Amino acid sequence: MSKKSNDKLVVFALGGVGEIGKNMYVIQYANDIVVVDSGLKFPEEDMLGVDIVIPDISYLTENRDKVRGILVTHGHEDHIGGLPYVLRQLNVPVYGTKLTLGLIESKLKEANLLGDTKRILINADSVLDLGTIKATFFKTNHSIPDSVGVALETPEGTVVHTGDFKFDQTPVNDQYADLHRMAEIGSKGVLMLLSDSTNAERPGFTGSEKSVGVELEDVFRKAKQRVVVATFASNIHRIQQVIDAAEATRRKVTVIGRSMVNVVSIASELGYLRIPDGMLIEPEEVNRMAADRVVILSTGSQGEPMSALTRMARSTHRKVDILPGDTVIIAATPIPGNEKYVGRTVDELFRLGAHVIYGPGSVSGVHVSGHGSQEELKLMLNLMRPKYFVPIHGEYRMLRQHGVLAESVGVEKENIFIIDNGDTVEVQNGTARKGSKVQAGNILIDGLGVGDVGNIVLRDRKLLSQDGILVVVVTLSKQEGNILSGPDIISRGFVYVRESEGLLDEANRIVTSTLNRLMNENVNEWASLKTHVKDALGRFLYEQTRRRPMILPIIMEV
Amino acid sequence: MSKKSNDKLVVFALGGVGEIGKNMYVIQYANDIVVVDSGLKFPEEDMLGVDIVIPDISYLTENRDKVRGILVTHGHEDHIGGLPYVLRQLNVPVYGTKLTLGLIESKLKEANLLGDTKRILINADSVLDLGTIKATFFKTNHSIPDSVGVALETPEGTVVHTGDFKFDQTPVNDQYADLHRMAEIGSKGVLMLLSDSTNAERPGFTGSEKSVGVELEDVFRKAKQRVVVATFASNIHRIQQVIDAAEATRRKVTVIGRSMVNVVSIASELGYLRIPDGMLIEPEEVNRMAADRVVILSTGSQGEPMSALTRMARSTHRKVDILPGDTVIIAATPIPGNEKYVGRTVDELFRLGAHVIYGPGSVSGVHVSGHGSQEELKLMLNLMRPKYFVPIHGEYRMLRQHGVLAESVGVEKENIFIIDNGDTVEVQNGTARKGSKVQAGNILIDGLGVGDVGNIVLRDRKLLSQDGILVVVVTLSKQEGNILSGPDIISRGFVYVRESEGLLDEANRIVTSTLNRLMNENVNEWASLKTHVKDALGRFLYEQTRRRPMILPIIMEV
Repeated sequence: MSKKSNDKLVVFALGGVGEIGKNMYVIQYANDIVVVDSGLKFPEEDMLGVDIVIPDISYLTENRDKVRGILVTHGHEDHIGGLPYVLRQLNVPVYGTKLTLGLIESKLKEANLLGDTKRILINADSVLDLGTIKATFFKTNHSIPDSVGVALETPEGTVVHTGDFKFDQTPVNDQYADLHRMAEIGSKGVLMLLSDSTNAERPGFTGSEKSVGVELEDVFRKAKQRVVVATFASNIHRIQQVIDAAEATRRKVTVIGRSMVNVVSIASELGYLRIPDGMLIEPEEVNRMAADRVVILSTGSQGEPMSALTRMARSTHRKVDILPGDTVIIAATPIPGNEKYVGRTVDELFRLGAHVIYGPGSVSGVHVSGHGSQEELKLMLNLMRPKYFVPIHGEYRMLRQHGVLAESVGVEKENIFIIDNGDTVEVQNGTARKGSKVQAGNILIDGLGVGDVGNIVLRDRKLLSQDGILVVVVTLSKQEGNILSGPDIISRGFVYVRESEGLLDEANRIVTSTLNRLMNENVNEWASLKTHVKDALGRFLYEQTRRRPMILPIIMEV
Repeated sequence: MSKKSNDKLVVFALGGVGEIGKNMYVIQYANDIVVVDSGLKFPEEDMLGVDIVIPDISYLTENRDKVRGILVTHGHEDHIGGLPYVLRQLNVPVYGTKLTLGLIESKLKEANLLGDTKRILINADSVLDLGTIKATFFKTNHSIPDSVGVALETPEGTVVHTGDFKFDQTPVNDQYADLHRMAEIGSKGVLMLLSDSTNAERPGFTGSEKSVGVELEDVFRKAKQRVVVATFASNIHRIQQVIDAAEATRRKVTVIGRSMVNVVSIASELGYLRIPDGMLIEPEEVNRMAADRVVILSTGSQGEPMSALTRMARSTHRKVDILPGDTVIIAATPIPGNEKYVGRTVDELFRLGAHVIYGPGSVSGVHVSGHGSQEELKLMLNLMRPKYFVPIHGEYRMLRQHGVLAESVGVEKENIFIIDNGDTVEVQNGTARKGSKVQAGNILIDGLGVGDVGNIVLRDRKLLSQDGILVVVVTLSKQEGNILSGPDIISRGFVYVRESEGLLDEANRIVTSTLNRLMNENVNEWASLKTHVKDALGRFLYEQTRRRPMILPIIMEV
């Protein structure tokens, strides 16, 4: 009998499964690690004060010598946003297509990392030798150009990572998905497919981006005044269609919102946006133009409080006002959790007298998703015909639904792995099984701090946000066993002090009597004094108000 | 010429327009005030720590002698939930149908107000003389039985308030809307219509509640194990259908969740739920029954953290566990803002191995709205043929869309009033116009406190929730101009202290040197010392962390 090798293939996610965001997938064969994507996530509502969230990459830093590089599928934040943090800890080559690298470089420049990192340009025909792993690529349709999927050939077989995709049969700028290469990869045999689950709950097909263009042109033509279009800055196909519709209806376009200006500049420089000469005007010129000759392309489609559209809706934008009769198009679907913000923006726009086009894309016609629906996910599964299937890029319920779809097209139930971040799937001698877990988790970024906000800090912020804080300061003379000054009670976020003087006076008396009693009983360890003050005061305040503010007793001794 | 009377009709909302919730409408003619509904609202996401929100009723308490009573259209929280607070300040008679009063009385009992308040039972045929205003009623379809609309005949003409409604042509328990009476009211002439705008953005007709029953029975029949149905406790028609489907499929029903138990008990006592003998079982009996003979009716359709379904999903419910193979039906649409909570509950249920039926009613088939869509709103407008139209019960954008619908069926554009809470519409001699504003607003209830949480408290809670707090305590001897003890810095919700010792040590040095410098310069007013410490420390911390915690300097003097 021939000796079996101990080498194996290990596949796992450090981010992106059981969540939407911070995509980071790891494919390891023997001593070669290839990372696909390095994204960020926006904080959950219980991550108070946190700016962004990135994956815990301990596994990668502990195995830094093995990491051959990070392959980036496309230029969206949930795929590239973690790079400035990750590359600081793990300086490995980053591979991406032209537009993807352009967007990454703008990010690294801002983080002052451009000089120290290695970026390698690829295209859909590139072949990379990454140790025992060979990487090839295939073009996909998504809401940003230059998106690719990745095929990783390993000694155990080929692992395919789809990236984010849909099948758009009439794509903008004729950027067709490479069906033929996908078919070819499938024909050669796919050991394992990792596929985008974002729309696994949605029946049917996702609409073509071109259908949005038709609708936009129609709205532009009918609008008697200015048109404002809010969409994701990163949706370059959508931006192209706004420009095309403006051209067809003889309008000029101004771009507002920092990220929108940035993306338009990068994408047009690199040739991914076709902008006719003289089409773009400065925001300052808008008021000098006839109203029916202007389109304002803006950020803020999610009702984000600081975005350009929100400022316009609140009449606090420095350069552009919404006038009665203007048409505002919100060309995006609210991300779960943002519905209220978007609704509020729509309300404010209506109050200003604008005509607002909003709501689900199926109703408004001005938005389609960048992710494939159930029939497209099945098409991908049928093209790839994988032995093993790992749904990625989605909340748990989406992964589950994607699993059901895979079963429906013939993947064996026991060959479908629904994983959490850190769960590994190991393949050895052609057989896959769940392996041991690797470290994975959320690293919270708050201001300049990376990882210094943890559960204790979040728990305190939560407590403070609910019922505020009371600080009780008292100076004791332990020798004499009496109170020298105080207690002073200062509250924030608890009650409106001017109307609650009686309550705070009584609280004061309770602290005084508690301390006097304890000192008479010769209890004078600080910890014990503090605990007693906290308990007595907490009990009193809860009885009086049914609130539980944080209580911070500070005992000074002189 | 005959002398014109100075009396006029005034109509306004104290709650319910520009928002979903806390419905309270006021119709006043001369010295007679009639109030319709008295609801609560759940707090917005920026109302940190607040439990519920009720309207500011200053106008009513200032005119208490004129208030003839509160007419309640149906028993939902957004129409009755404010009563315990309102009746404490304004003890006037409350009029409602049998089920509505039953639910109100359960509420007042809990608030210990049952003995002191006057409740008057009405039915759809009641006629009330409320001074110069005569009230009659008409039955409507909604997701709770015994819902009515109100026609208020005044010397200026008739004002119709629809209550919450849909037109269900095949209602549960044959509770048909009284189309004929509505037609009759319309024939006699309606001066002003106030109509429910909840679904004004939705094209078409809302589905019949009966269609949900068919679907439920189908799911119950196919389920091989237990079925859990989560829906709103107040949706008594839905509860009836769960019971009917259980009967048809030979299953027993157990009810869990405090509000569900309460509503089922009141509704069945009053004859609004038909429950076969022996149908209900205790939660404790569930585990002794064959799995395919059980239905669990539960609260938690919104993923509320403390609800029964959420506890089951997290395996922390005391009595009922979800077992692999159980079917869970979420028979409700997430209220905007709750999508993430619902999604998380669905994820947890899937992880437990349950089969979960969820998503928009149009997909799942197990939910329909209780509010009419655009075609039904137009039907109501056509039945009533009002001269003036005031869309109510909705966010601003919904009111606007409802206005567009009214125009489309022939209401004059200038006769449509889109109002905010407190805006009045006055009618005199047959002509309506906007009148002066009355006081209106949100009263926040936090624990036992009614109105003691205002903007300052909320602003502080917001600040505390973002970056936490630093308390700086120092004892000075002003005579000697030196620091006697401290500075001590205590932080909560700012950084994880054990990993940030260096930062806090440096902060300490900055406070010390700031104070020493000031005392050397003979600056020794407390306010000035505090401001300087706050500024210096704030600047340092922002530079180091890009965070702005609240800084609370406490200077003691001995």
